[in-house]
This record gives sequence, structure tokens and C-alpha cells, in this order.
Amino acid sequence: MHPRLTLALAIMEALAILAYAISGFIEARTKRLDAVGTFLVAMATAFGGGTVRDVLLDRRPFYWVEHQWYAVLIFVLSFFAPFVLKAYTRVFNERVLLVADAVGLGLFSISGTSLALDARMPWFVASMMGVATGVFGGIIRDVICNEVPLILRDSRPYATCALVGCWVYLLLDYINFDTVYSVLIATGFILVARLVTFKLDVRLPH
Amino acid sequence: MHPRLTLALAIMEALAILAYAISGFIEARTKRLDAVGTFLVAMATAFGGGTVRDVLLDRRPFYWVEHQWYAVLIFVLSFFAPFVLKAYTRVFNERVLLVADAVGLGLFSISGTSLALDARMPWFVASMMGVATGVFGGIIRDVICNEVPLILRDSRPYATCALVGCWVYLLLDYINFDTVYSVLIATGFILVARLVTFKLDVRLPH
Amino acid sequence: MHPRLTLALAIMEALAILAYAISGFIEARTKRLDAVGTFLVAMATAFGGGTVRDVLLDRRPFYWVEHQWYAVLIFVLSFFAPFVLKAYTRVFNERVLLVADAVGLGLFSISGTSLALDARMPWFVASMMGVATGVFGGIIRDVICNEVPLILRDSRPYATCALVGCWVYLLLDYINFDTVYSVLIATGFILVARLVTFKLDVRLPH
Repeated sequence: MHPRLTLALAIMEALAILAYAISGFIEARTKRLDAVGTFLVAMATAFGGGTVRDVLLDRRPFYWVEHQWYAVLIFVLSFFAPFVLKAYTRVFNERVLLVADAVGLGLFSISGTSLALDARMPWFVASMMGVATGVFGGIIRDVICNEVPLILRDSRPYATCALVGCWVYLLLDYINFDTVYSVLIATGFILVARLVTFKLDVRLPH
Repeated sequence: MHPRLTLALAIMEALAILAYAISGFIEARTKRLDAVGTFLVAMATAFGGGTVRDVLLDRRPFYWVEHQWYAVLIFVLSFFAPFVLKAYTRVFNERVLLVADAVGLGLFSISGTSLALDARMPWFVASMMGVATGVFGGIIRDVICNEVPLILRDSRPYATCALVGCWVYLLLDYINFDTVYSVLIATGFILVARLVTFKLDVRLPH
Repeated sequence: MHPRLTLALAIMEALAILAYAISGFIEARTKRLDAVGTFLVAMATAFGGGTVRDVLLDRRPFYWVEHQWYAVLIFVLSFFAPFVLKAYTRVFNERVLLVADAVGLGLFSISGTSLALDARMPWFVASMMGVATGVFGGIIRDVICNEVPLILRDSRPYATCALVGCWVYLLLDYINFDTVYSVLIATGFILVARLVTFKLDVRLPH
């Protein structure tokens, strides 16, 4: 891969992990958890989806084991979570979190689908594994915090965008399209689909 | 195995999976989940028990990976869950679900025990793995939907029937009784025990 | 290891497992679970932490599979949980449970860290695995019983004591201190830290 593309992907990945962790901080704040509880919830949000996928695929090592400095960073931030959130809301607005979260949804879902295909999963299962990578972190966060998971209640398409994007990726893979471009297109599709449906306030029937 | 028996078992299995999925649809309906949330809850109910068992036993592939068309079917049904439930309640009554669920409890518990024995688990652990196969789907469903799991609250014997049936199976296995008949007898035992104790309104102390 | 030390460790371990199981009985009682529900919650509390760690590390067999008589014992006690709790509260007071639980927190956290190091986990991850071994049982208990996990709400340091103790162990391991003494010192550190901070009513910010 082109080195500048590699760098761009690494930066997007770091942003996405932080966005997921911050959504953990926000939930932990509303439940008044202490620093260690905040750390646990933020870690579960950021890495829970990929860890569930890896346990199901029997893959090791986990991402947060190979990149333990993310865990150390989230640990340190957890002790300053109130300040992190205050500084964050002063500098950024809600849209930044929405976009960073959508980037994460795209990246995590497509990388999850790709890893599941490498593990020779059938196509529908591979797309489920992709969506699980993107959304299970949030589900675990909400289950620990004793809430019905947000993505199951909110009728705005979230998992649905990820699922359709995974199918786009499967289609591109099926016609042997270049892998790097397939990842970029499918990730971009999820990002755009999430932002557009959110903006237009599209609702799923329920 | 006799081909007609194989067919009968496959039909019972399909009925049981659908019964578990429908109990997921019902729970998802009361929580007003959208289609994707309904799919997730139905999948967790139908395959969660076997998946937990397989993770504990370090077995792969999972049943729903080998038979992905069940996942596709439940996915499609999830989008029509309100109609599925309406059509279902028009054609069948509550007893059909009760019986199909009891068939599932029997089949899943005994197959779980059998797989655990194959993996050289000690006897008590094997019976625990069997019960887990039968009941963990419902527990995951209720945890996701933010309820105290029904089977832990309801004092009517459910897991208890499964556990005693697993012990019947272990006993038959211990005396080297024919495997096919052992499965049928123990599964039938659980089915009958569940229906009889339910009918007689037997209650466990708590 | 000196045989008397081995015996002492085995006794402490049995006490700790029982203390964890009893905290499961207490929670099950408040939720009015039946005997099988009580068994499940007690097992999850006693062995959930180690099982999660072993799944993450891909280790088999689980402790409760190798020592199934603990499971049989907890199963039998579950049927008499009201009597067990009544007899228990007549003979012991709350402090005994507090101390036994703190012994468990120390033993489980340090053994978890040690196993994670054996599996070549990096240091921060090893300490996280240690803490997870000590605290995930209680988290699973509370999630099943539909509560926000106690250790995330209670601002008295619990996981924090375990974490610092794991770091003490990592430090002693790093300077190649004798393994047996390292385990004893770090376990003792967690025990004392938990009891002292509890007594002095130290609170974490939240």
C-alpha cells in the first residue's frame, strides 16, 4: 500500500478508537462511575467489538494486546475523564463525535468482514462478523451500564448502514476488485450512509 | 442412523430453532426494537447457548456458521417480525410455542452434553454444558433486553428439567446403552418433564 | 514449594472461592432466584473472572473443569442457600466475608497476572488480565441480576487495589525476585490495601 495511505488509515483508526472511547466516557459519566469503571467501559466500547469477533473467529492476539499503548492512553485519560470531556466539548461540537464514530463504524465493520473472509467464513456470516465488530462495543457498554443497547432502540439506521456497506465490500471482493480500493469504497459508503441518513432523519420501521 | 429418523431429528431441530427465534421476536417486540435489533436478539436466543458452549469447549465452526441459511432466514423474518408474529398467533396458539420450545430444550441440552463428553469433560461439567446449551440463549436475550433472565426468576422447573434429563443421558451413556436411543429417551424425558411440570404448575422453592 | 505453603495456599483458595460464591448467593437472594438460578449466579461469581481470562488467553481446561467438585459443592449448597446464608450469618459477621473476599481478590488477581505473563502478554495487558480475573465474576453476577456492577459504582477502591498489587507483582517479577515470595507479597499487598482503604473509607474521585 502507498505509505501515505497507510498513514491516513492509521490516523483514521486512532481517531475512531478515541471516538468510541469517548462515547464510553460519556456513558460512564451519566452513571457516575469511578476512574476504573470508566476505564473498563471505555475499553469495552473501543475494543469490545473486535474482541468478540476474534473470540468467535478464534484469532489471537487481540488488537489491544498488540497495541497496548492504546490501553495505557485510555487508562490515563480515564482518570481525567471529566476534564477530557470538558476540554473536548469546548473544542469540538457533537458533529465531530458523530463523524469520528461513523468513521469507526466504517473502518471496524469492513476490517471485520475482511478478517472473517480470511478465516473462510461464508458470506452472510462474514457480514455479520463485520457488523458485530462495529457495533458490539456499544452493546457491551450499554449492557454493563444497565441500559437497553442504544443501537437496538434507536430506529435511525446504524447497524443497517454497516451491514449494507459490508455487502458492498463482499460484492467488490466477489468481482475481484482491488482490495485497497474496495476497503476505501466500502468504508466511505458506510460513513456517507450513516451521515446522510442521520441528517435526513431516516427511520427504520419498528 | 435410519434415514427417516435423521429426517425426523432435522425437522425437530428446525422447529426448535424457529421456536427459540420466535421467543426472541416476542421479546424484541415488547422492547420495540427495530429490524436489526430484532435480528440480533433472535439470533442470540436461537444460537447463543450453543455458541457459548462451543467457545467454552474451544469448538469451531459454530452451528450458525455451518448452516448460514438459518441466519439468512431469521434475518429476512426479522424485517417482517410484526407480520410473522401476527400470522403465527392466528395459526397457532401458545401451546405450540411451549411444546416447540420444550423440544428445543431437550434437543439442545442433550446434544450439548454429548458434545461435552466427546471433548472429555467430566460428568458434572458435561451436564452443565448441556443445560447451558439449552438455556443460555434465553439468558443472553434477557440480558440484552435489560431484564432479569426469565429462567432465573420463574420458579417453574426449566433448567432443572434439562439438568435431570442430562443426567439420564449420562447414566445411559455410562451403562453403554445404544447412543441413538439414549438421545431419544433423554430428549423425550426433558420434553415430557417440562410439559408435565408446567401443566401441574410445579414450583421450585426460592 | 514448601508443602505447608502449598496447603496454606489451597486453603486460602477454597476460602476465596466460597466467599465469591456466597456473594453470589446473597445477590441471588435479593432477586428471589430459584435454586438453579442461584447456582448459575454463584458459579458465575466464583469462576466467571478466571473463565473470561482463560477465553481471552485461549487457555484450557478451565479451573472449574479441572476441579469439578467445587461445582458439585456449589450446586448442593445452592439448594440450601437460605439455610447456608442463615447459618453463615449466625456464625460469622460481615467482616469475615470482607476479609475472605479480599483474600480472593488478591489471589485471583495475582494468579491471573502470572498466567498472562506465562502467555507472553505485555505488562499492562497482564495487569488488566489480573484485575479481570479478580473482578469480572462480580461484574457478570451484577449484569445477570440486572444491576449496574457494584465495583463500577462503589467509589471505594477495589479494582484499583488489585491493579496496584498487580503492578507490585510485575515489578518484583521484573527484578527477578523469587516467584513464591513475589506472589505472597503482592497478594498480601492487595489484601491489606483493600482492608485499610475500606476501614479508612478512602474514596476515588468520580
